[in-house]
Amino acid sequence: MYKLYYAPGTCALASHIALEEACADYSAIRLDFKANQQQSPDYLKINAKGRVPALVTDKGIITETPAILAFIAQTFPGAKLAPTDDPFAFAQVQSFNSYLCSTVHVAHAHKGRGYRWATQESSFADMKGMVPKSMAACMDLVEKGMLKGPWVMGEQYTICDPYLYTIALWLEGDSVDLKTLPKVAAHMKRMADRRAVKKVMGEQQAKAA
Amino acid sequence: MYKLYYAPGTCALASHIALEEACADYSAIRLDFKANQQQSPDYLKINAKGRVPALVTDKGIITETPAILAFIAQTFPGAKLAPTDDPFAFAQVQSFNSYLCSTVHVAHAHKGRGYRWATQESSFADMKGMVPKSMAACMDLVEKGMLKGPWVMGEQYTICDPYLYTIALWLEGDSVDLKTLPKVAAHMKRMADRRAVKKVMGEQQAKAA
Repeated sequence: MYKLYYAPGTCALASHIALEEACADYSAIRLDFKANQQQSPDYLKINAKGRVPALVTDKGIITETPAILAFIAQTFPGAKLAPTDDPFAFAQVQSFNSYLCSTVHVAHAHKGRGYRWATQESSFADMKGMVPKSMAACMDLVEKGMLKGPWVMGEQYTICDPYLYTIALWLEGDSVDLKTLPKVAAHMKRMADRRAVKKVMGEQQAKAA
Repeated sequence: MYKLYYAPGTCALASHIALEEACADYSAIRLDFKANQQQSPDYLKINAKGRVPALVTDKGIITETPAILAFIAQTFPGAKLAPTDDPFAFAQVQSFNSYLCSTVHVAHAHKGRGYRWATQESSFADMKGMVPKSMAACMDLVEKGMLKGPWVMGEQYTICDPYLYTIALWLEGDSVDLKTLPKVAAHMKRMADRRAVKKVMGEQQAKAA
């Protein structure tokens, strides 16, 4: 039995969907970010970084989305969520997820979390103002090169797909016009139709209400 | 025969060391960042992101440090650079590397690459001013929790070690006092003594001269 700590609207959605796709035995535990629960002493014992996701397993705790996603793929090989036995193909999966975590997610974070990297209100406003442009540039690379279609890696659905979907859900709020990203928009629709995604979105939205 | 594209002083050092540790058959090709060679049309065909590292293999190109490092570990199992067959242990390796790429490297990048996330000189100065504090906070988590010693994952040297070393080399320039990070400082010394590190540092510094 796995325990996934998440908050609605965060990148933890990707791991939540992946657990559901793998038909894993898990429970999802919501943190209240408005109450700053991710910085509570109890949660800092689970993840000293004070972030989500964190996946509690019987061997210990795993943090960081790309690590959790690869763990799920490797632990549930029957779900075929990544070609973990093919080093080059697996590296392509990992490269995509690493780009999302280190570049795309980071670009997005400058909208509301500028205090991580600066101190002045004027800097926060400047950073926030650039998000539509930086996110559009990031997603342009996804649209034109990385997203093979119908899924990120081509015919096979992988752990890249829930991660891209998670970040694509932020684009409207980041003022990126999805009409300029037809492949990404079609991928979002394809994702929204999946059983696992419907179930997880229902659960995260119900709990958030 | 692998080809690694790198520039001195960048995170590509981690992949360079890992190739050397694995005794891989490779050549390292230096890009001149001062001449903006990473944005040249020829290089953008290799990596559309205009960054290093990029690893050219006979199956295609791999980008993003965590993906390249795991690929090297998986392709050269004899070098024992990661427990790729143990999903939980491998997830710990990946979690560490993911933290370095998405949080620590990003904190550092705000010193000189603020234009990625803002437009105003005042914002760049503000970001630059915060780097000593944000890098110290990042490395405090490494020092107090993540770095088990003697190597990052404990007794076994892994792909986490060249990556930590690469980022630790930035700390002096980021005005982080290594005296506050004795475990990280000892790790740096241990790394500097390795055959692979000596060879790669010699090569990168010679070519940079």
